[in-house]
Amino acid sequence: MSEIVPVSESVQLERVHDILDSGALRAAVRLLDSLAPAEIAHVLESLPSTQREILWGLIRENCDGAVLLSVTDEVRAELTRDMSLAAWLAASDDLDPDDLAELMRKMPDAVTRQVINALDEQHRKRLEAVLAYPQDTAGGLMNPDTVTVRPEVTLDVVARYLRRLGDQLPRDTDKLFVVNRDDHYLGVLSLSRLVSGQLDQSVAEVMSLDLPPLPATMAASRVAHRFEAHDLLSAPVVDEAGCLLGRITIDDVVDIIREEGEHQLLGQVGLSESADMFAPVWASTRRRATWLGVNLLTALLASWVIGQFELALSQIVALAVLMPIVASMGGIAGSQTLTLAIRGIALNQLSAKNMPHLLWKELAVGAVNSLIWATVVAVLVALWFASWSLAVLIGVAMTINLLCAVLSGAFLPLLLDRLGIDPALAGSVLLTTVTDVVGFMAFLGLATLFLL
Amino acid sequence: MSEIVPVSESVQLERVHDILDSGALRAAVRLLDSLAPAEIAHVLESLPSTQREILWGLIRENCDGAVLLSVTDEVRAELTRDMSLAAWLAASDDLDPDDLAELMRKMPDAVTRQVINALDEQHRKRLEAVLAYPQDTAGGLMNPDTVTVRPEVTLDVVARYLRRLGDQLPRDTDKLFVVNRDDHYLGVLSLSRLVSGQLDQSVAEVMSLDLPPLPATMAASRVAHRFEAHDLLSAPVVDEAGCLLGRITIDDVVDIIREEGEHQLLGQVGLSESADMFAPVWASTRRRATWLGVNLLTALLASWVIGQFELALSQIVALAVLMPIVASMGGIAGSQTLTLAIRGIALNQLSAKNMPHLLWKELAVGAVNSLIWATVVAVLVALWFASWSLAVLIGVAMTINLLCAVLSGAFLPLLLDRLGIDPALAGSVLLTTVTDVVGFMAFLGLATLFLL
Repeated sequence: MSEIVPVSESVQLERVHDILDSGALRAAVRLLDSLAPAEIAHVLESLPSTQREILWGLIRENCDGAVLLSVTDEVRAELTRDMSLAAWLAASDDLDPDDLAELMRKMPDAVTRQVINALDEQHRKRLEAVLAYPQDTAGGLMNPDTVTVRPEVTLDVVARYLRRLGDQLPRDTDKLFVVNRDDHYLGVLSLSRLVSGQLDQSVAEVMSLDLPPLPATMAASRVAHRFEAHDLLSAPVVDEAGCLLGRITIDDVVDIIREEGEHQLLGQVGLSESADMFAPVWASTRRRATWLGVNLLTALLASWVIGQFELALSQIVALAVLMPIVASMGGIAGSQTLTLAIRGIALNQLSAKNMPHLLWKELAVGAVNSLIWATVVAVLVALWFASWSLAVLIGVAMTINLLCAVLSGAFLPLLLDRLGIDPALAGSVLLTTVTDVVGFMAFLGLATLFLL
Repeated sequence: MSEIVPVSESVQLERVHDILDSGALRAAVRLLDSLAPAEIAHVLESLPSTQREILWGLIRENCDGAVLLSVTDEVRAELTRDMSLAAWLAASDDLDPDDLAELMRKMPDAVTRQVINALDEQHRKRLEAVLAYPQDTAGGLMNPDTVTVRPEVTLDVVARYLRRLGDQLPRDTDKLFVVNRDDHYLGVLSLSRLVSGQLDQSVAEVMSLDLPPLPATMAASRVAHRFEAHDLLSAPVVDEAGCLLGRITIDDVVDIIREEGEHQLLGQVGLSESADMFAPVWASTRRRATWLGVNLLTALLASWVIGQFELALSQIVALAVLMPIVASMGGIAGSQTLTLAIRGIALNQLSAKNMPHLLWKELAVGAVNSLIWATVVAVLVALWFASWSLAVLIGVAMTINLLCAVLSGAFLPLLLDRLGIDPALAGSVLLTTVTDVVGFMAFLGLATLFLL
């Protein structure tokens, strides 16, 4: 039993670090041999560059392509920077057509040609079927290796056919696809139905019709939703004429779901979902510098707004002390609404139809919250600066900013989505711009009007 | 073919809205009949409260428990607020033990007892096996309905056994578990191996040994990583003695992965992953008010810091104009590092071992970026306010704040994790506190020292 008792990921990771620190490279190779490709990828991702290079050097030449597919884009680019043609060919070996297609999209062109030349006619055709579709569609994700059966044959015939196939039956096959003579998709015969059915029944009698096929052009995120909604393990992919092209299995869908979550999380701070925690300093700096530059524009705009009220600031120093409160409370309230709206759009649950309801609800929540916190802040300010006029003023400014913030938070993502701009990327910068500008303008503007 | 051509989610959603707007309730019922439980859940989640109630009224009494399991916690609480015992019993009907256990954890106690009483001895035992473990562990997620075979029997015997089981074979069975007389887990026999193997082979000959079983106490997030790393469709769950307790299927794992992503995304703005976009105003207000209150403390602290430099602010109004730039650039740089670190911890890729490397890398990136942007801002300030001393001062303050920001961004999540505090929840507030306080203190402090 001891061999199949799992080792926790963090223990594994600690061990790899210890081994690399001690320089016991043979022990490292032995450890790597015991790991699945995705686990090796996980270890590589969590190593700093120098250690990553050492480990990669140990496995590069007979590397499993699955490792390269499992690491994030940035790590893969680093690992394959000066990979030899032989190593690329070794990595391409034994991959399923869908995985091979994915790997080929990352290869240098010269390598791609060599890999295609190394394939036989049948494999080449299958590969080209996948490459014919963009990567983020059902067609680009599919594995063209399917086992098909005709509706009129009996389960006995199917069972004997599968036994003849033997090891050629694709791993992870959980269902067979039923097609007619023209390869039109008709339904599925799950293996569990096959093994529990009577041998003299026909495929047509036991096959399931309630699994709608996925059009090859369907977007990957929609494919993921379909899998989630129907608890699918695999699903057929068809062309426009309804002919079976291949199947998508849930392991690819899990990757899509993970990436979608990461995109929303990392997009908000201007990072890509393929970000490498240990990317080289220069590569990290470039991307982050861009984001800091974009945000600097926001900050400069806010400063320019403040600069318009120099007179008020020079006369009442309390304004400078208090103005960040107005801006930051607006930012917090707005970002809550923004995040909910971005998630709603990503999950396909927010549209022009229910948008008005979200707007009203967020406005109501914003109104109650600004009532509460504007009052609290006003009382604190009255006590701190012993000025009721300043207290009322900051309360009103906060109310204005919070309402603008939730409105923008609800409205901006849908507007950006309509314009074809990714709300997960641009939403938070734009929102901060609104809450800073409105916050400073309301507070300092009201002060200029009523306190000077 | 037309019946199985899929309808896109957004079209579905539009149609439900139209039907509810028009009041054609029969059409709504027909539409609901054509949807999977998870799709109905999706529609319910994207409806505002009043429409949600109407739709729920139509399906409540003969509702599928799967719908209740698919909606988020908040929506479920709303839907089941005054649900009758009969409706609860109807919802509990026909659920797999793992799903039933999950639903029971959400039921009122009185209902729970009734549901248990309605079960026969065998079902009750299975249910209790699941309920014995916390929900977020392998044991709490497992389905105790497994099909087991002995290693010594032939595939022919297994095939005949499964045909006798017929419809009793659990849906989604993709593999059988091989156990000895004492129910000790030995390995798996996948259906694809069964149907492609020779009938006279024994189970022991063709079974696979390379699927380590999951201990029942394993955390759900670790279960998810295991499924991802090994591309599993289902996995066995064992107790401490290695006896088979049940199996986990990937559909449950997909839910965990989705929830993990949402937790990180929504946690950053103080919302829970079960947040309902259309929650009642009062419920939303309460949760958000707490978050605004926590953030107000940060803002007040920042204001207090600013207040310490009233003298400088009253003499040089440019300080008030420029100080938000210093604070906000620090916040942006820090939040990038923070997000990477939070993701690293969630993915189990960041530990005390590789933390120093992350710290150094982030410091280096922060140093280069502060060099770039401090220079840009200094030049702009020199031009704007015609003061080189002010320009140098803001450049130095920005550099200090950016370096503190990336240090805190890298360090805080690991510290919080060690203290048992969820970094996804507390990280961003604490980081903002650091960047605001350090930013204002550095800029205004330096100004007090050198410009007055």
